[in-house]
Formats: sequence, structure tokens, C-alpha cells
Amino acid sequence: MKRQEYKVVFEPSGRQVYVLAESILLEAAAQAGLILQTPCGGTGKCGKCRVRVVSGQCKPSAACLEVFSRQEIENGFRLACQAKAGGDLRIEIPVESLFESQQQILVQGEGGKLPLQPAVGKYYVDLAKDAPDGALSDVERIRAAVRPAEFSSISIATMRLLPDALRKNHFKGTVVLADHELIGFEPGDSTGRSFGIAIDLGTTTLVGTIINLNTGMDVAVDARVNPQTSYGDDVISRLRLCREDEKGLSRLQRVIIGAINDIIDKLASEARIRREDIYEVVLAGNTTMQQIACGIDPSALGEIPFVPAFTRALELSASEMGLEINAHGRVYVFPQIGGFVGGDTVAGLVASRMALSDETILFVDIGTNGEIVLKHGACLMAASVAAGPAFEGARISCGMRATAGAIEKVIINDDLSCNVIGNTRPVGLCGSGLIDLVAELRRTGLVESSGRICAASELPADTPAAIKRRLIEKEGQGAFVIAGKSESASGQPLLLTQKDVREMQLANGAIRSGINILLKMAGINCTRLDSVLLAGGFGNFIRRNHALRIGLLPPVPSGKIRFIGNASLMGARRAILSVAEKEFAEKMAHEVRHIDLSLSPEFQAEFSDAIVFPEEEPHG
Amino acid sequence: MKRQEYKVVFEPSGRQVYVLAESILLEAAAQAGLILQTPCGGTGKCGKCRVRVVSGQCKPSAACLEVFSRQEIENGFRLACQAKAGGDLRIEIPVESLFESQQQILVQGEGGKLPLQPAVGKYYVDLAKDAPDGALSDVERIRAAVRPAEFSSISIATMRLLPDALRKNHFKGTVVLADHELIGFEPGDSTGRSFGIAIDLGTTTLVGTIINLNTGMDVAVDARVNPQTSYGDDVISRLRLCREDEKGLSRLQRVIIGAINDIIDKLASEARIRREDIYEVVLAGNTTMQQIACGIDPSALGEIPFVPAFTRALELSASEMGLEINAHGRVYVFPQIGGFVGGDTVAGLVASRMALSDETILFVDIGTNGEIVLKHGACLMAASVAAGPAFEGARISCGMRATAGAIEKVIINDDLSCNVIGNTRPVGLCGSGLIDLVAELRRTGLVESSGRICAASELPADTPAAIKRRLIEKEGQGAFVIAGKSESASGQPLLLTQKDVREMQLANGAIRSGINILLKMAGINCTRLDSVLLAGGFGNFIRRNHALRIGLLPPVPSGKIRFIGNASLMGARRAILSVAEKEFAEKMAHEVRHIDLSLSPEFQAEFSDAIVFPEEEPHG
Repeated sequence: MKRQEYKVVFEPSGRQVYVLAESILLEAAAQAGLILQTPCGGTGKCGKCRVRVVSGQCKPSAACLEVFSRQEIENGFRLACQAKAGGDLRIEIPVESLFESQQQILVQGEGGKLPLQPAVGKYYVDLAKDAPDGALSDVERIRAAVRPAEFSSISIATMRLLPDALRKNHFKGTVVLADHELIGFEPGDSTGRSFGIAIDLGTTTLVGTIINLNTGMDVAVDARVNPQTSYGDDVISRLRLCREDEKGLSRLQRVIIGAINDIIDKLASEARIRREDIYEVVLAGNTTMQQIACGIDPSALGEIPFVPAFTRALELSASEMGLEINAHGRVYVFPQIGGFVGGDTVAGLVASRMALSDETILFVDIGTNGEIVLKHGACLMAASVAAGPAFEGARISCGMRATAGAIEKVIINDDLSCNVIGNTRPVGLCGSGLIDLVAELRRTGLVESSGRICAASELPADTPAAIKRRLIEKEGQGAFVIAGKSESASGQPLLLTQKDVREMQLANGAIRSGINILLKMAGINCTRLDSVLLAGGFGNFIRRNHALRIGLLPPVPSGKIRFIGNASLMGARRAILSVAEKEFAEKMAHEVRHIDLSLSPEFQAEFSDAIVFPEEEPHG
Repeated sequence: MKRQEYKVVFEPSGRQVYVLAESILLEAAAQAGLILQTPCGGTGKCGKCRVRVVSGQCKPSAACLEVFSRQEIENGFRLACQAKAGGDLRIEIPVESLFESQQQILVQGEGGKLPLQPAVGKYYVDLAKDAPDGALSDVERIRAAVRPAEFSSISIATMRLLPDALRKNHFKGTVVLADHELIGFEPGDSTGRSFGIAIDLGTTTLVGTIINLNTGMDVAVDARVNPQTSYGDDVISRLRLCREDEKGLSRLQRVIIGAINDIIDKLASEARIRREDIYEVVLAGNTTMQQIACGIDPSALGEIPFVPAFTRALELSASEMGLEINAHGRVYVFPQIGGFVGGDTVAGLVASRMALSDETILFVDIGTNGEIVLKHGACLMAASVAAGPAFEGARISCGMRATAGAIEKVIINDDLSCNVIGNTRPVGLCGSGLIDLVAELRRTGLVESSGRICAASELPADTPAAIKRRLIEKEGQGAFVIAGKSESASGQPLLLTQKDVREMQLANGAIRSGINILLKMAGINCTRLDSVLLAGGFGNFIRRNHALRIGLLPPVPSGKIRFIGNASLMGARRAILSVAEKEFAEKMAHEVRHIDLSLSPEFQAEFSDAIVFPEEEPHG
């Protein structure tokens, strides 16, 4: 097993990743969660993905020389879709090169496209000056000091604290409003301390980001395994627990709330703020996850006709939900579409803005529950498929989340090369590593289109010996040695078993058959697609050709595929930053038609076809 | 001590009272809480107070013979302001003879002037029929079944119960909405069971009434002493406790909430309903009482500039307040005006509708805190005075609430005659009895204008011996024996002491000086008053001439004085019956100008004058 890796640091974010030698910068950036503009599909023609090499080895490609002037090349400008890492690099990404939804978030602090309009507003007041009429009631005096339109109500909990808070602070302090409700009066000028947390509530993975509501900038990110996985690794097993055990719901709720509180704690500490400075949490997850987190029995999602309890957004107090932020803080739970298509998909629609486009767009969010949205003309429809947690590294013998030690990229030539997150010995295989590995095994003929892992004896004679040695037998079936004892972190070999490949085929087939049915319902085939948006929190990135090679996506030119990262988290973040985005979310949830695939007679037939890997090589 | 009493039963309400022989029917009705129309001031001219004698002795007066035809007289019609009780009576009161605010409440069930529009609405639904789309979420299915405009939100508490409630009841049941929020889904058709409770939250007395929200009719009434009186009998003592003892507020709150819960319990049991069938409680009290009940520290009301915490209405959940009605029920706390002028005054304005009149009107609500409102042209202002609890029977040596055993009416001729509530032996003196007694003592010269009780030796020689015997000395001052040992219920004499008279003078003087200052501020004298509305829960009724004789009211023709009963309770009741009345309350609270008498330099001077009883006999 050989490796040659370079460290790439991106500016101005400071994010850094390790990539294989000769990786193109576009993929390195994606690995760092920075998605660049590639309207030409990464073919070096549009020049939109320009970046600047600040330091390190990075030869300009032919396309770079065509697009940039000699001076620009000297100044370090490159096309990220063409230039390759030739050593450790420091790369500057201009804001305009970022994918639009990322750009907006990054620049809105300086008055960009998303006007900062969070539900939480803080105003420093000195009532003796700002509202000198001392005969006004406490509440009316505050109303007179802040813009009256900002202020429509007050909770009884805040009301009970207000008289004392005002007088202790001599009528000077910071008024906190959330969605026009007075939720606090704080000593001194605390307007600079206002934070929100956006959470992507995945079946397998939880990701949270803390946002400074004054600047709109992310301050820290945290991800961890959803602890509910110990009660079953997919939505169905969680639903079963809620239906069969009367304490099931409260148990599942307790662990998820505990995990969210751990994320809150971690983010607050990384951001070096107090939890009291966090005033809002926005949650986006599928219908089951959202209902469980809110303590709403999701059992009806486990029986025909699979209905969620609610579809419009829920707004509740953090204390009602048990979340440990400011005692008077709020929680916004994303609106839902129907069936299993929940707030995460709505958040993805908010992040991608695909419904506003005139193009025909397919949106695929890959997670334990896969969600698919198709926009074609006036038709906007969404479906959910049970993909299982394989793409998130679970249910795979050496599967793991995309953290340090995870193999996230694999190339097979004379032998296997792989890229390990954090540049350590490999611990396991994350989702993108799994796709990479299986796609490479398909490309090199080590796995058949049926999914069967070949035996060493079946391979052509010219197969390199290093590769042949990796094919072994385990429990009467083929298996592939990813790392031997001496190479792995644990001292145990890392294997891809036949069962692992089957598991992945199921995930793959579920998503692909969902895509096929939506295309059929819209009366189009995949050639009509202008773009395919690939979202998901599994690793950061899968290679486009690999997604096509394993048949996860229909055969489209790879240039039409755009990675948009964790769209659910990105949408949740937008909702924290602007109440207009919450309205947009509500509109999206209302306008998207939910397609219940369980009612589709074709689903089984499509699924049987889709679990077989394609024979053809992807084109494009 | 002699008595001659008759029992008078009023139809259709069934209310009954005991009155002295020759009492006029108008006063008997008022004693039963039934306030009749008297635009002519009870002079027998307008004919608006017509009632019908169903059975019993009641001679027509000369005015009756003029107003009614012979046939009508034979059918029992009489003018209530003229006809006198000549024996036990059964009297029918036509709806149109009732004072308008009472009339509206009594008739609105049949489509009268106050359209029934309570915040609470119940709708029986069979979702299989009414919202057949089984793919809708639980909440949206209910929204589709009820009028969508009725339904804007759902609390998380209800949301958590909804999925199970719907399925257990096979999607048939009763949807409960409160102020457009979904608060319940009940088994079967419970639309017939919908109740609200209006509470007058007095410093000394609590009165509650339970109302059937389907008919708008009162079902039962309960009154009791505010248990906070054990911590001090006026607002100032309660404020002091909150300021000086850190547990003061929570202690006061606990006892008042306990008492309200006792009232709720009693009313539910009298109405033969379950507490779960009660969905709303409306509270009207002065600013201190309302804040304490809500758990909001009222200490700022105890220091300059005497500000309440809020003025707009508070809407909260019954559980947040600790009230034991339906677990998802609501509480509406009346908007407040300012200083000590609180929700009870606003409720009185809602009940009396005085602000809508073109007349110049003085509204006086007599309680431990007395409130005075003056409407003159565009000027509408309110003030509060600390009258003390004398008029509610407290702080008087033999004082008591107007319940069984209370002397509520007194006449002095050759000896003292008195009317005891419940027709039993006397236990004590209620507010109206105190006023009656002192007024009679003034009329007969047994008390001087300074308030001093004369000694028997000072009286004219022709004073009846029975009266002379009642004047005794106690602790070096005069006292008056109301009932001797052998006459009272306890076997102890009932006395009116000099201290009692002083206490009443203070109450009297406080209210009168408040009235005088408002009149001065409006630049008018009392001759400009078109009406004086006298509200209060002390007994049911005081005689107009007596209110004038003791100087409680400025010298106006007694015909201009109207009794409107417990206006605070009446306003609270209207708010339960119609959300439009709540809006009207908010408007009233906003429009009335609060006059802080503590800032008036004239108050002390006015007060010194007003504690002296008038020398002149009232005219009119």
C-alpha cells in the first residue's frame, strides 16, 4: 500500500485537507467542504473556478494557459478543475468562485445576497434616555425604546424576570427579541454576543454549526454519530421501537436531545462563548428524526399511509425541548413535505434554490434515508427511499464516519493507493471511500456487475500480483483486503466483504430506482436533466465518475453533476440567518408534491434493475 | 330591634332576596344583583323599569296608574321604582327592563347585542369524511376539516398528544381551538361542553362566575375572601411583603392561585361539569392583584413612579399559571391602565361602555382600592385611591362580607330596623349595611359631621328611649349598639365603634377626594355630570341617598346615580364571551389617561375636606 499525500490549505477559511498527489484542486476544495462553481462541468472552459496558488507546486494545465494571461499565471491563478496538486499547497479561493449557495453565506456578512435578518435581534437601550416617560409600564417602556414593529409579545417567563432585571441594571441593558417576542433583558451592552446553531439531524450523523448572528459567519462545526443508532441503524428500526415499546419514544428522544446538547456544548466551547449567548437552534432532519426530537410519536410513519404529525414548521421554546441554550431561547423545526420527506429536504431546497430555476434539475440527498427531488417545468416532486446507512459508513464491516483515520479516496492501479483523513494509518472506510473502492473494483473487473467479488483464480493472468493477493475467501465468499494487519491502525486487516458490497448495492439501488421513478412520472428521461445536485454529509465528496460507474446516478455527462455538500445544514443555516428564508422554506414545503414510492407498483421492478451495477463506463 | 321582612323571588333567574316591608322593587332587584333601567332616575316618569307581579301583595302607586292601562295593572305590571313590597312576592323582570350591560349578557345567547364569539371554539369532525385525504399530516388534516382561518398554530404540548388521540378515536372527535391555536382533540362529540370562568380579583374579595360558552349564560357564581388578606388587608401591605421578604411574592401568589382553584372547583361542581371542560379563565383585578396572580413582582408599584410591569393584556397557558382547568386551557389577564388602575377598571369600562357615550359620566368602582373614571367630551381619565377594605366589611369591628348573616340594610325610626341576608340572626355588618347605618346615624343626628358618635346625654329630650339605650361608651369614646347579646347570632353584642366610623370616613374621603380632583382636572363641577355609575362588589347595593348623605358621591340629583353591580366581573364575562370585547378592552386601556393622584398637590387638601360628612341633606 503506497501513499503520496499533500497538505492543501485554503484561504481565507483556513480549512485544510490531505490529498493524493496529482489530485485536481476542485476535488481537494470539495473535500474541504468548499464547493466551487463549475457551470462547464469541470471541463476547463468557463473559467469560473479560478483560484490563486499562494505557495507550493501547481503546474498550469493547457486550459489554464488558454484562460489566463501570462501575468495572471505568474500571479498564481489556476483553474481549479484542471490544476493538480504537485506538493503541499496554500490556495486562495475568491468568493466569486464559490458555488452560489456557499458564496451567499460567506459574503452576506458584508451585505451580500442574503440580507442578515435573523429572528433574534438585540438592542442596547438606556431607558432614561431612549424612553424617558417613567410612568410607562416596564414592557411599554421597552417597546418605546426599540422599534415598536419589532416587538409584539412577551412570554410569561420573561415577564416574571423583567421588573427586577430592569431595576437591577438601572434601566440600561440589552433587549433581546426573538421573532418579535421579548425574551430577555441583559446587563450592559451584549449586542455583540448573539449566536445561533443550525443542526442537520441525520438518521446516522448529526452535524451542527454555530453562527455569529452579527456577522453571519460560521464559528465552529461539530459532527457526531446519532446515538439512536444503538437502537437500530435506520428509520424503520426507530419507528418499530416507538410502536412496540411504550418507553421507546422517550428513550430515543432523550438520547438525541443529549447528543444535541453535547454538540451545543462543544460548539459553545470552540466558539469561546457561553451557552446563554445562543438564542436559537434550527433543526432540519427527516420526518422521523424531527418528530422524535420534538417528542412527537412518529408511529404513524410506520404504517400505511405513512403520515407525519405536522408539515408546517414548529416553533417552540428551547426549554420545552430540553435544549441547553439561553433559557428563553427558541427552536425552529423545519417544515416537512410528507411521508419520510422531511425538513432536511426542505432545507436542501432552501439551500439549492432549485425551485427558482428554469432548468430541469435532479436533487439527490444521500443519507440513510435518501431523498430525491425533481424539478421539471412546473412540476416539483419529492420522494424518499430507505437507502440504509452504508453511505454513512455504517452496516459495512469496516465502515466508519468521515473522521480521522477514514479512508475516503481509493485508486487502484498496480496496487491500491488510498487517502486517509488526517494522514494517519487507516481505521476504516467512510462513505466516499466505499464508493471509490467499489467503483475502482468495478473498473478493474475485480467485482462483477452482479456485485460478486471475483476470486483471484478467475482474474486475467496479467493482473498485478499485489492486487491478486488482496482477493481472499471469507466464509465461503470473496473478500478484498483493503489494508493488511501491518498497515491498519488496529493491527487487524481491513476487509471489504461480499456482504458489504451487497449492502452498498441495496443503498445504491434504492436511490437509483427512486430517481428513475420520478423521471418517469415527469415523463422525461435522464438526457433532459440540465443539472444533478448531489447533496449529503457522507465524507465531503464522491468522485462524479464513480457515482456514475456504480449506477448511483443515471448516465448523464459528469459535467452536469454538482456537489453541494450538506445542503440540509446549509438550508438550516440560512433559516437562522434570515426569517425570509423560513418563509421560503414554508413555501417550498407547501409546493413540493410528495410521491409515496411505497404506493408505486413499479418500485420493486426498478429496484431489481438498479441493484445491478452498470456494464458501461460513464461518458463525459 | 324589630324586623318585618318579605321574600321576593325574581323570574326568570330564580334569584331570591329578603327585603324590609315597603322596600321598593327596584332596590329589591338590585339586592338580587339585577340592575334595572332607570333613565328618569327612578322618579316614575320613564316607565322603563316595568316588571310584572306574578303573585303576592304589591299595590300600584299613583305613577303606576298613570303609566299603565287598567288591563296592564290587572295583569300585574308595576313600575319597579315606585311599587313597594307588601308581602312575599314573585316578580317577573322583562329582559328589556334590565340595565343594558346585564341585558346584553342575558340575551346574547339568543342572538342579542353581544354576538357570541368566544376565543374557544369546538368542532366535531369525522376526518374520514371531512378531510378524506389520508396522506395529509395530522395537523393539516384537522386544518382541512375545520375552517382554515380558525386555525393558525399548535402548541408543542398538544402536538405531542395529537397522533395518538387521532388514532385512538379513529379520526373522529372534537377539535378544540383557543384563539386560533389547536389545544385539543377530544373523543366523541364534546362540542356541548365548553365553559369559561370570569374572575374579579379583588384585594379583599374574589368573585367568579362560570359561563356556558355555547349559550353565553352564567351557570353558577362563587365569592370568597381573598386569602391574601391574612398577609395584610390592603394593596400597600401586600406590596411591602413583596419588597421586604424574598419569598413574599411566591407566598402571595400561592394563596391566590389556591383560592382561584377553589373557586374553579366549586363552580365546576355547582355546574355539574368536569374541570377539563373549562378552557379559559379571564382575570380582572387591580395592577397589584394581577401581577401577583401572574407571579410578576409588583414591587415597582410600591415606589415612585408606581409603574406596573405591563399594560397590554397577558395571554398565557393555565398550566403556566397553575390554574386547574383543562390542561391546555388559557388565561387572559386584562390589560391595565397604569399605576394602581388595572384590569378591573378596564373591565368596568368594557361593561359600562361609558367611553362610547356622548354624556359626561363619572364611574366609581368601590373596593379596597377605589377606582374613578371620568368621561367628559374627548377627555377620559382614571385614578385610583386607597380606600381600604371598610366597604368590603373588613377593618370594621363587626364587619363581614355580604353573605348570610350580614346586616345589609338599616333604617332608624323609633328604633333600628335592619335587614339580614338570609333572614337569620345578624352576624355582622357588610359594606352596604355600614353605609346605611352611618347614613341613618347622620340623618338622625346621632353622629356629627366630624364623625363623632354622640353620647346619649347630648341628644334632644324627645329622642326615643330605644335609641338612647343604643348609645354607649367604649374605651372612652362613643359607640352604637347594633344588636344586643340576645339578638346577635353569637350571643355577643354587635357594635359600631368610633374607630369604625373613622375607618369609614377614610374610605369615603379617599374616594370623594379622587372624584373631586378628576372633576377639577376636567375643568367641570359636579352639576355637569349626566350620570354617575356606581360599581362594586360590596353587598349588591347601597341606597343612593345614603351614598350622597355620607358624601361618598358629590351632590348630584340621586336620579343620576346608576348602580351597575360588579362591573369588573361583568367586563371579564364579556371578554370570555367575545374576542371583540378583548380588543375593546385593549383599546380602552390604551385610551384612558392615568392620573397619578400621589403626584397631585391638591390631594391632601381635598382629602381633609372629604373625610368630613356633608351637613346638607341630599336633594333629588
